[in-house]
Amino acid sequence: MSTIVKNDVKQALLEAGISIMLEKGYSNSGISEVLASVGVPKGSFYYYFESKEDFALAMISYASERNAEGMSKIFDDTSIKAIDRLKKYFTDCRIDMVSKECRKGCLIGNLSQEMADQSERLREALTDILLAKHQMLADVIAEAQVDGDISNKRSAKELAELTHAAWMGSLLLAKTTKDSGLLETCECLIFEDILK
Amino acid sequence: MSTIVKNDVKQALLEAGISIMLEKGYSNSGISEVLASVGVPKGSFYYYFESKEDFALAMISYASERNAEGMSKIFDDTSIKAIDRLKKYFTDCRIDMVSKECRKGCLIGNLSQEMADQSERLREALTDILLAKHQMLADVIAEAQVDGDISNKRSAKELAELTHAAWMGSLLLAKTTKDSGLLETCECLIFEDILK
Repeated sequence: MSTIVKNDVKQALLEAGISIMLEKGYSNSGISEVLASVGVPKGSFYYYFESKEDFALAMISYASERNAEGMSKIFDDTSIKAIDRLKKYFTDCRIDMVSKECRKGCLIGNLSQEMADQSERLREALTDILLAKHQMLADVIAEAQVDGDISNKRSAKELAELTHAAWMGSLLLAKTTKDSGLLETCECLIFEDILK
Repeated sequence: MSTIVKNDVKQALLEAGISIMLEKGYSNSGISEVLASVGVPKGSFYYYFESKEDFALAMISYASERNAEGMSKIFDDTSIKAIDRLKKYFTDCRIDMVSKECRKGCLIGNLSQEMADQSERLREALTDILLAKHQMLADVIAEAQVDGDISNKRSAKELAELTHAAWMGSLLLAKTTKDSGLLETCECLIFEDILK
């Protein structure tokens, strides 16, 4: 296999794994299903990943890099006011969840829920990603505080955590009830009550 | 088996199942582990439950009744102001999570996350329980609105949903990071910003 083809197979395995694990969770997803979806034999999987846990760690890393790129694309655009970048971010997240008919949700949130007490390696990796996400949110919130669009009553870090908590809880409720209305209500809460 | 012994076995299976499923999730929990924990043969399980899904439905129902009883005990005590009953409820929830070292979390939230896209029967049962919980919260919030302790800017129903969403998200973050600090911050958010 050439390096390009090798990377294609690895990426295809990661993308298939993310899609299957987003729908079915970690414990309920089998490696054989991922292999069948990509159309490669078992040997290809173990060429890239030592175990299912290693595969999950690679998926978490891949998905969070993609998330971080998406966040940076919005958050680094300083032609738009910081508060409006935050609004665009949450609106885009809501539209994405609505387009998925409130299924699947977010890989990092789903695996956090399912695996935090099952695998210390996964829990640590997930914690690092959550904290990095809070930092990205906190940086833009701090900018909006300097602009005077968000009060300094709470620290940017605390506001980032609270905003993210409210959003994750709303995603979970929307995933269960299949009612996306709560996501809109949560957006109002974030910008009218938390980040004000 | 006398009726009392029968009910004892059923209850023991439900309690063992809840304890195991809280820690390991649905897909990762085996019936054999529940049977070993209670010390009864497979036949006893299938005498009470047709399948793992039926068992989960019975656990959800059992756990939610216990939760509802705990909520009623606090919420029906009209010798205490409605706003203070709400505070006591969230403080008790936080103390419980801290006492569990931020492990396990809440069965209804955990199964919602893991199973909403996997079993329509479980999703519907979980939705009913979440909506009933929101109604219990909304009733006390409405009382606090009449008392003038919470503004009428949002409806009691909306405030109940938002409060619950923020709390569930905070539980998920605490479960992952094993940092209970966010639960305290979330309590402040609930009473200083959402229910104000």
